[in-house]
Amino acid sequence: MAPPTPKQVVTIDLTKKPWEQKFPLHNRWHPHIPPVAEVKVGELFRVEMSDWTGGVIKDDDSALDIKSIDLSAVHYLSGPIRVVGEDGIAAKPGDLLVVEILNLGPLPGDEWGYTATFDRENGGGFLTDHFPCATKAIWYFEGIYAYSPHIPGVRFPGLTHPGVIGTAPSMELLDIWNKRERDLEENGLQNLKLCEVLHSRPLANLPTPKGCRLGKIEDGTPEWEKIAREAARTIPGRENGGNCDIKNLSRGSKIYLPVFVDGANLSTGDMHFSQGDGEVSFCGAIEMSGFLELKCELIRGGMKEYLTPMGPTPLHVNPIFEIGPVEPRFSEWLVFEGISVDESGRQHYLDASVAYKRAVLNAIDYLSKFGYSKEQVYLLLSCCPCEGRISGIVDSPNACATLAIPTAIFDQDIRPKNNKVPVGPRIVRKPDVLKCTYDGNLPVTRNPSAST
Amino acid sequence: MAPPTPKQVVTIDLTKKPWEQKFPLHNRWHPHIPPVAEVKVGELFRVEMSDWTGGVIKDDDSALDIKSIDLSAVHYLSGPIRVVGEDGIAAKPGDLLVVEILNLGPLPGDEWGYTATFDRENGGGFLTDHFPCATKAIWYFEGIYAYSPHIPGVRFPGLTHPGVIGTAPSMELLDIWNKRERDLEENGLQNLKLCEVLHSRPLANLPTPKGCRLGKIEDGTPEWEKIAREAARTIPGRENGGNCDIKNLSRGSKIYLPVFVDGANLSTGDMHFSQGDGEVSFCGAIEMSGFLELKCELIRGGMKEYLTPMGPTPLHVNPIFEIGPVEPRFSEWLVFEGISVDESGRQHYLDASVAYKRAVLNAIDYLSKFGYSKEQVYLLLSCCPCEGRISGIVDSPNACATLAIPTAIFDQDIRPKNNKVPVGPRIVRKPDVLKCTYDGNLPVTRNPSAST
Amino acid sequence: MAPPTPKQVVTIDLTKKPWEQKFPLHNRWHPHIPPVAEVKVGELFRVEMSDWTGGVIKDDDSALDIKSIDLSAVHYLSGPIRVVGEDGIAAKPGDLLVVEILNLGPLPGDEWGYTATFDRENGGGFLTDHFPCATKAIWYFEGIYAYSPHIPGVRFPGLTHPGVIGTAPSMELLDIWNKRERDLEENGLQNLKLCEVLHSRPLANLPTPKGCRLGKIEDGTPEWEKIAREAARTIPGRENGGNCDIKNLSRGSKIYLPVFVDGANLSTGDMHFSQGDGEVSFCGAIEMSGFLELKCELIRGGMKEYLTPMGPTPLHVNPIFEIGPVEPRFSEWLVFEGISVDESGRQHYLDASVAYKRAVLNAIDYLSKFGYSKEQVYLLLSCCPCEGRISGIVDSPNACATLAIPTAIFDQDIRPKNNKVPVGPRIVRKPDVLKCTYDGNLPVTRNPSAST
Amino acid sequence: MAPPTPKQVVTIDLTKKPWEQKFPLHNRWHPHIPPVAEVKVGELFRVEMSDWTGGVIKDDDSALDIKSIDLSAVHYLSGPIRVVGEDGIAAKPGDLLVVEILNLGPLPGDEWGYTATFDRENGGGFLTDHFPCATKAIWYFEGIYAYSPHIPGVRFPGLTHPGVIGTAPSMELLDIWNKRERDLEENGLQNLKLCEVLHSRPLANLPTPKGCRLGKIEDGTPEWEKIAREAARTIPGRENGGNCDIKNLSRGSKIYLPVFVDGANLSTGDMHFSQGDGEVSFCGAIEMSGFLELKCELIRGGMKEYLTPMGPTPLHVNPIFEIGPVEPRFSEWLVFEGISVDESGRQHYLDASVAYKRAVLNAIDYLSKFGYSKEQVYLLLSCCPCEGRISGIVDSPNACATLAIPTAIFDQDIRPKNNKVPVGPRIVRKPDVLKCTYDGNLPVTRNPSAST
Repeated sequence: MAPPTPKQVVTIDLTKKPWEQKFPLHNRWHPHIPPVAEVKVGELFRVEMSDWTGGVIKDDDSALDIKSIDLSAVHYLSGPIRVVGEDGIAAKPGDLLVVEILNLGPLPGDEWGYTATFDRENGGGFLTDHFPCATKAIWYFEGIYAYSPHIPGVRFPGLTHPGVIGTAPSMELLDIWNKRERDLEENGLQNLKLCEVLHSRPLANLPTPKGCRLGKIEDGTPEWEKIAREAARTIPGRENGGNCDIKNLSRGSKIYLPVFVDGANLSTGDMHFSQGDGEVSFCGAIEMSGFLELKCELIRGGMKEYLTPMGPTPLHVNPIFEIGPVEPRFSEWLVFEGISVDESGRQHYLDASVAYKRAVLNAIDYLSKFGYSKEQVYLLLSCCPCEGRISGIVDSPNACATLAIPTAIFDQDIRPKNNKVPVGPRIVRKPDVLKCTYDGNLPVTRNPSAST
Repeated sequence: MAPPTPKQVVTIDLTKKPWEQKFPLHNRWHPHIPPVAEVKVGELFRVEMSDWTGGVIKDDDSALDIKSIDLSAVHYLSGPIRVVGEDGIAAKPGDLLVVEILNLGPLPGDEWGYTATFDRENGGGFLTDHFPCATKAIWYFEGIYAYSPHIPGVRFPGLTHPGVIGTAPSMELLDIWNKRERDLEENGLQNLKLCEVLHSRPLANLPTPKGCRLGKIEDGTPEWEKIAREAARTIPGRENGGNCDIKNLSRGSKIYLPVFVDGANLSTGDMHFSQGDGEVSFCGAIEMSGFLELKCELIRGGMKEYLTPMGPTPLHVNPIFEIGPVEPRFSEWLVFEGISVDESGRQHYLDASVAYKRAVLNAIDYLSKFGYSKEQVYLLLSCCPCEGRISGIVDSPNACATLAIPTAIFDQDIRPKNNKVPVGPRIVRKPDVLKCTYDGNLPVTRNPSAST
Repeated sequence: MAPPTPKQVVTIDLTKKPWEQKFPLHNRWHPHIPPVAEVKVGELFRVEMSDWTGGVIKDDDSALDIKSIDLSAVHYLSGPIRVVGEDGIAAKPGDLLVVEILNLGPLPGDEWGYTATFDRENGGGFLTDHFPCATKAIWYFEGIYAYSPHIPGVRFPGLTHPGVIGTAPSMELLDIWNKRERDLEENGLQNLKLCEVLHSRPLANLPTPKGCRLGKIEDGTPEWEKIAREAARTIPGRENGGNCDIKNLSRGSKIYLPVFVDGANLSTGDMHFSQGDGEVSFCGAIEMSGFLELKCELIRGGMKEYLTPMGPTPLHVNPIFEIGPVEPRFSEWLVFEGISVDESGRQHYLDASVAYKRAVLNAIDYLSKFGYSKEQVYLLLSCCPCEGRISGIVDSPNACATLAIPTAIFDQDIRPKNNKVPVGPRIVRKPDVLKCTYDGNLPVTRNPSAST
Repeated sequence: MAPPTPKQVVTIDLTKKPWEQKFPLHNRWHPHIPPVAEVKVGELFRVEMSDWTGGVIKDDDSALDIKSIDLSAVHYLSGPIRVVGEDGIAAKPGDLLVVEILNLGPLPGDEWGYTATFDRENGGGFLTDHFPCATKAIWYFEGIYAYSPHIPGVRFPGLTHPGVIGTAPSMELLDIWNKRERDLEENGLQNLKLCEVLHSRPLANLPTPKGCRLGKIEDGTPEWEKIAREAARTIPGRENGGNCDIKNLSRGSKIYLPVFVDGANLSTGDMHFSQGDGEVSFCGAIEMSGFLELKCELIRGGMKEYLTPMGPTPLHVNPIFEIGPVEPRFSEWLVFEGISVDESGRQHYLDASVAYKRAVLNAIDYLSKFGYSKEQVYLLLSCCPCEGRISGIVDSPNACATLAIPTAIFDQDIRPKNNKVPVGPRIVRKPDVLKCTYDGNLPVTRNPSAST
């Protein structure tokens, strides 16, 4: 009658590099990355993860590590984990893998995280045309709460979750990904959004051996060479789940993932202590190392039963999620709205991305009146438990998006009031976020109506 | 010490046409539409509203009224209401008008509503390339709950709200609107979204005397002629608020509206018994007549204080909102995800609209396995209290949008399960929604992977 | 296809006395009070109610009406309403009557209420040994919110509910009630609680023709004489439901009531705009007139199926309740604790009533430091949405009860803070509650440790 | 810039006895129990705790350990912890000690707990006159969830909290406790409640050297002899906090504790994975070992500022609490009511303890219709997140108490339904709870109306 202590299937030694770990990490999606562990359905197991950069970003006084980071080497994922049924038979393509998140948190002794924006020439973020510099804020954890020496006056409970969780793609699915993303990169300029100035951001991140790590497959071997040239990057979420950045996937959630290869080959990483909807600053959650306690079930043949493909092949599916019961709850929200008219005044057609950009910009300007720099608010809205909604998507030509911010995270009342004048940028709270200079030469979008 | 019974400022006689009302309704935005009533700050007042079509849609057994509706005559709004301060001085341009929603509901004796999709050649909806037919479902109210004879097996509490609430634009703002929307209509094809098949929907709805109603200004007079040619249509939400369709603007909410003209000239209408984020079917909430009980405050000079313009002029602002404490709460949600890859398999770049379309399509297919027609689910997801989120907007090239559905609104357990097979289209619940044929000749998008 | 407008089954004319109404009210429980209306299961119907005193308490500047009220004539109830099944057969003893509360609210034009404590010689309240005077506070409603000119600085959304809802007892059940309450009144002194000073409160309220009203049965007739001598008073909740004062029985709730007589004979009244758990001041909710919109179902034979009798007869049952989804929600609570040691320092044995009294006294003293008189807080804690919990009932000898107060109802931060001194009684907010003198000669309990 | 990893101030080695620990535990309240550790305000620290019995209860197949337990040796507490200000000056009597619970959980590797009722002759429980046997159920934890092999079909997230947290009493306060509890034990029979059959439970637990453990003070020394004879037992909650069993004191909560001795001498223990209001079965939470991560602040002189004494001395105060934002939330509740009429049909006067007993009995009978034994439900209602409310405490002669149970914890729909008959005791889920025989000779209360 021994208690069911979680079985450790992946451990992390924070003093080692990702490729030096006992269960070496990988940073690509490919069917041939070999599993590092196996679990049976119904079994409680624990997976440890490095932060998404594998320890490159430090708890120090500079944003230089952010500015100079090599993004070809992210995200470092733990796994793959092979899943077998009670009968000992591995998960099969066509099954549905049910992953329940039973517990999670930071790694003991490593209770800190960071939120950042990349330099515009090195990845940027949602508002990179307004904020081209690399910036960084450090967060410390006090149990469920996070606070930052770089963004004073806020403290909030984390809705902690893995940013990346997914199954391995089959070769067929991988080919679909690589083809469609290559098409975009080659012919995608007509798809530009967001005021046409975001083209400085990469349209897609195609496979590249640079920075590629494949777990148990040694770098430089012929096998590595072959896979590295094919393996998909982990930046976008796709049919296998992956980097979906759904901020509510916390304790008690369930994820119904399609299985594309024998054993399912589950990988996970990119732990977030907290994230706002949209993760707007890109390195935008409170990024940290951490652990997950998981339990798997298999619904045999469940893909066909529950996931209708939406696209040209039976592989064009998306996972389904269930939300857990222990989210932090807030009762008062201040809501900012954006419509699909951009900062130059130009009308876009039902464009939720433009509308959401506008809502975020409105919120940044508003909150900067209460003693924050705009960079502080940009990072804050990227990582605090704010909700980004598509409120109206049919009222031509304006999409309407909203950003709702829980007022309880601030140590002051941030609502508009009749007799109290917000204090404005004159008393920006110090210290500010850590910043680097922007050395590029792309045009920066300024708000033509803003006072300095 | 008499109690502060709400003062009736606009009443509706449901047996009369919008222009025959004691306080005649209007369906355009223009600074010169004269107020029909005046309120003082701090005063509790009640506004009654027709449904957004002014009574065109009937509680009957046919969707023909939906198919043939003349959309040039919507939305019928109550007001404008002139707001004056305690000192008797009217609201001034530059003030912030705070409107608190203290109560609301259907009009007594008219406790029903409808959800519909327009014919593709007459307005369509978010998924009009998949669902080109006009459809209609009737809803009946039992106090806080709604149920539909056309969508059996669901019942939910309403998060009732006005779809449209806004202040009158100044001439300068009106000119900005008309210019930018005309630009879109004339040059907007390069902005096409949503798989390029939505171009059948109007890009914008420019001013037109057709169907125009201007409250106290009699039709056909020279004044009417002039204003009707200039006055903005009410379909999109804009800087003045208007048709923002924020589903949480219910009891206890506050709206901080910019004031552009003397007296603010507040108008409201388009009551929704309930709506899902996005209002995807376009006529998509549970549309009804209703009443609002409101109280106004003025923050003098508050626009400059609290709303930073984001665009070329000081008029490029958006309202701010506060959410009330009495929303229906649900503890269990099933979440569907979409990424910015369209149904043809084509990759789009960080396009939240495409991602949300995909999430909605995924949800429709999923729920149709539980005994619903896809049209039933399309209407249901448009009007039930579901949440549409922008989960990730930075992970190139995929935006990730999610649609969360509260499981408690169904009379069956809709979660994936190991041993129970969903019943599928074989037992579609009857009766289905009311439908018309689609007589147009635009191409219809089919899901290439779907079984029949 | 006409919409199901609620059927009016009881209407109230506020200008008339309870016995002059078209559907005359009653203020006793008895099987022979004849129904005033009939409803069928599944039918939506509307019941109007006077306030519990039938209009005796006025919206004026004096508490004299509270001091001199004749409590033999309360509560005035609407009904009885006879319930029949779809087959036309009336509810039968042994059935379970399911009443769903679909909507409710104040009567239009009568949007105000009051909270009061009775004079100690005329009913008193939970803390009558501390607060012997009659007091009154008026509340005005702004939609979902209530505020009081007599308790400045608080405003809260109502969790509106009927204080009394129940079915008619059978003669057998009525006999049980009368016998056990008479036993208490005759022999109950050994049951005294609450520091033995509450004995000034009536131990029970036995049947009395004084003030008795029996609906359609005319006063003074032989039938009236007989019933009036037997009929149970409405003060306590009992097996039939009745005055259970469950503050969460609001919109969307269901009540499963046992049926003791043919037709069930449902009566209801005592509408509360809001109430705190315990309703401590006795006239303690925000008392008002109002309406209910209800729908009934019958579970035939359901008493036996679902309600196990707990006592010597099959009639010793209690109703079951389900809570609705639209309660006002608060995220921050300040919690006061009490243990079963009374104000004299004496130890009681696992006495939750004493512990709760102590928790309420602690809360009153605490809040009085923030500018309130103790009478203001006593009335406030009786009617605001505070929660009274039995936290520990087993740790001999101390029961532990808690009172949780939502901090958002105050216009100031009421939490203990390091650098801010609460302002204390020096700046009691004016005006205070309306008060009468206490002319009795019972000993008043003072807190020996309190400053003045 | 090192991250603020919690400082370990008390560690537990589960293989050792409480008195063998590096920081030996204590099980009494006394001012002279010496601190085992010191913390500074603002410092994050971690305290580990054994379960309340110090490891006596085992994860095995028998309830014999429960039956034979020596309750003179509980609760084993970690501490005392001395608290000093930023200035290095210790907390002083009259200060208010603010303890924030930042995180908590089971001890890694010990993820299990138990719920039990004691034999009636050895402590009993709230319903010991109905359920005189010792029983035990084991619970296993899967992250946030608990499930029991002995109570199949339920699973719920824990609202984990310390049952005991308090400061050391001064000698003066200790004398008050000992005197008043001795008075009760000597003269308390007239205070008997709960149908007069609970007198088999101890009225109070007076100081006794038997089983006494005093941390660093060695057993049998003269110092130990003196203190052991004076030191208060830990069973009841008192002025210093202590065993208050407030189930909501979970992550993010704050406790404002009065300081009675230099350094405050904070002790804590009795971790509960989950508990229902009332903790009715007495050993009634899911009892476990665990850890707390805490941070302290001091409000100098805060007792006088914020805690009004309610009783004969300035020491007669109670702590104040603030509830955290991350509780599991449920949207659907089934509510059982009890009034102050006992199982023999006898009327009690406004007795919330009797009313709550009735509500719990009603709930047990109801749920036993769905395939549970009554013992299973008794233990379940003691430890699941159910809410016990004092709904009405003024409606003479009936107090009305309610017990609300979240329906989502069951794997079946437990609401009354029209066409479905609950299955009843015929299919009691197996295995049942572990039971011992009752060998005593006290009368057992049976429900006279119950079918076997």
